[in-house]
Amino acid sequence: MKKIQAWGTTAAGKPLAPMTIDRRAPGEGDVVIQILFCGVCHSDIHQARDEWSGATFPMVPGHEIVGRVIEVGSGVGKFRVGDMAGVGCMVDSCRSCHPCGDGVEQFCLKGNAPTYNGTEMDRKTRTFGGYSAEIVVNEGYALRVPSALDPASAAPLLCAGITTYSPLRQLGCKPGDRVGVVGLGGLGHMAVKLAASMGAKVTVLSTSKSKEADAVRLGATDFIVTSDAVAMKKAAGSLDIVIDTVSAPHDYDTYLSLLRARGAMAIVGAPPTPVTLHAFSLILGGKRLVGSLIGGIAETQEMLDHCAKHGIGSDIEVIPIQQINDAYERVLKSDVRYRFVIDLESLNR
Amino acid sequence: MKKIQAWGTTAAGKPLAPMTIDRRAPGEGDVVIQILFCGVCHSDIHQARDEWSGATFPMVPGHEIVGRVIEVGSGVGKFRVGDMAGVGCMVDSCRSCHPCGDGVEQFCLKGNAPTYNGTEMDRKTRTFGGYSAEIVVNEGYALRVPSALDPASAAPLLCAGITTYSPLRQLGCKPGDRVGVVGLGGLGHMAVKLAASMGAKVTVLSTSKSKEADAVRLGATDFIVTSDAVAMKKAAGSLDIVIDTVSAPHDYDTYLSLLRARGAMAIVGAPPTPVTLHAFSLILGGKRLVGSLIGGIAETQEMLDHCAKHGIGSDIEVIPIQQINDAYERVLKSDVRYRFVIDLESLNR
Repeated sequence: MKKIQAWGTTAAGKPLAPMTIDRRAPGEGDVVIQILFCGVCHSDIHQARDEWSGATFPMVPGHEIVGRVIEVGSGVGKFRVGDMAGVGCMVDSCRSCHPCGDGVEQFCLKGNAPTYNGTEMDRKTRTFGGYSAEIVVNEGYALRVPSALDPASAAPLLCAGITTYSPLRQLGCKPGDRVGVVGLGGLGHMAVKLAASMGAKVTVLSTSKSKEADAVRLGATDFIVTSDAVAMKKAAGSLDIVIDTVSAPHDYDTYLSLLRARGAMAIVGAPPTPVTLHAFSLILGGKRLVGSLIGGIAETQEMLDHCAKHGIGSDIEVIPIQQINDAYERVLKSDVRYRFVIDLESLNR
Repeated sequence: MKKIQAWGTTAAGKPLAPMTIDRRAPGEGDVVIQILFCGVCHSDIHQARDEWSGATFPMVPGHEIVGRVIEVGSGVGKFRVGDMAGVGCMVDSCRSCHPCGDGVEQFCLKGNAPTYNGTEMDRKTRTFGGYSAEIVVNEGYALRVPSALDPASAAPLLCAGITTYSPLRQLGCKPGDRVGVVGLGGLGHMAVKLAASMGAKVTVLSTSKSKEADAVRLGATDFIVTSDAVAMKKAAGSLDIVIDTVSAPHDYDTYLSLLRARGAMAIVGAPPTPVTLHAFSLILGGKRLVGSLIGGIAETQEMLDHCAKHGIGSDIEVIPIQQINDAYERVLKSDVRYRFVIDLESLNR
């Protein structure tokens, strides 16, 4: 065991503060990563405040991790000391069930080992996330971060990036497709960049006209204020794919109406209350409503390589860890364009 | 024009009664079909009673039509006089839009020409359905009915059959798959037969224990009474595909919970009121909710050929047209196993 500096919280809703955690000595398949940057995901806040229930404390959030490999176990083949590596939302899974075999370890039948607020697969050892100096992870659950990527803006790719990349890929996004992105926040801004990089023509759908310039800058060709009934009606039946990133309560029928026949809408935002849906919104036009949850390890690697090839990173605001509690408040007000990233070097201040 | 005997209604909710309709003289691409049998679909009742609004009268329902070709236009290549032919839910479409090009004429961008309660593509000539002695239809929208099929029990295949066959095919149903069928009525009983014929292991989910013996007879290997919470919980995560045929208000989360990761539930029943849905029911497990509406012409032909190969027809109760109003009442009470089929020879009584 090694004592590691971290920031976390000891009870639901308490401000985050410095703490010390234990990291295991690396086993033969493990790498030790010195964490350089960690993105701040809205789900960090939900979990630190136990808004999804089942939270365990003390908790060190953070699952958008990029850092440098500083030690490797004897059996490690994928990394060498000095390599840049990433860790996303999970650090292990059973490796033997059908979903693990299919490369969708996020759906491991035994439940994957989440990067924080959970346990390793022994179901005893608690996991702690990326608001910390180092992490120890099996190489199979660490990602290679290509040198073409800026480490800070690459960090949010490990969650926001894969969360939007996976449905675009699963739904077969291709050049010439028309993709609608609902909501322009941390997830939405990645969806715009990624869909545009796949050759799609992107329409951003937002409640706020103020986001139009940003939408265009990020790669969108069209922008619709969702309260504009005329524009919404004009867009009916025009989109091949919709990526719905909104987690506030909203209605699906409105966005399903924008899809062409046999189009698909992917849900990556999770409203806390049930959504109403008219069956006819799906039946007429043979449309699909598809849930998507991050992505598997291989697909996450594919996404990072894709981003390196296309020069894609998240739009970020880098903060020292000491500003994390303020950052949480700003995330709740959507006052960030588009992702806070903690510079872990600040742990030493 | 030719005067044709039919049964129909002159206003919403009025009992069906004998009437005379006009059928056009066959053009060079048309076939004239002497109707032998026509299935009674629940949607006939909805439309005859204008429960979906927009109904036009007089109306002659019926879109599960099987009969004998008695005349062909000079340009017809697919049929010869004496052939058995079928007509389903549409008699034409624009033939030039993307959906028509993709073989999903039911989603024609100009709106297909429904077999009744609508117009031909000229948007003037009214269409009348299969509760009649003859129908004239372009050969491209008529189906070949293989001689191995019994004409009466084949009639419901033109709607109930294709409505359940299409989602099974689109979702890639294959030997060894586990398929759940929600509701054992006109659609559900076809879903069971078709899924079993594709090599799937079928579980019927029904509110009524009394349907168990029938479910097994139709090809199901498992039966769950949906009020049995223990059995439902035990089945969680076990199904590859669910076909939801229920049109009464119900909740989707319950059935989505039965799907394995990345499984899909197809909706072919349309509850009249909005359904509530938790986003997490789709996100966790990356599940899909898919609407499906009949099927295209080529897929309908494929379904008929499949049914001929596997000896599949609908379970039917043959009635003379004079019993149609009673039959409607019995359909509303689910008092039919599983489809009424009108013997049109009774028109002459």
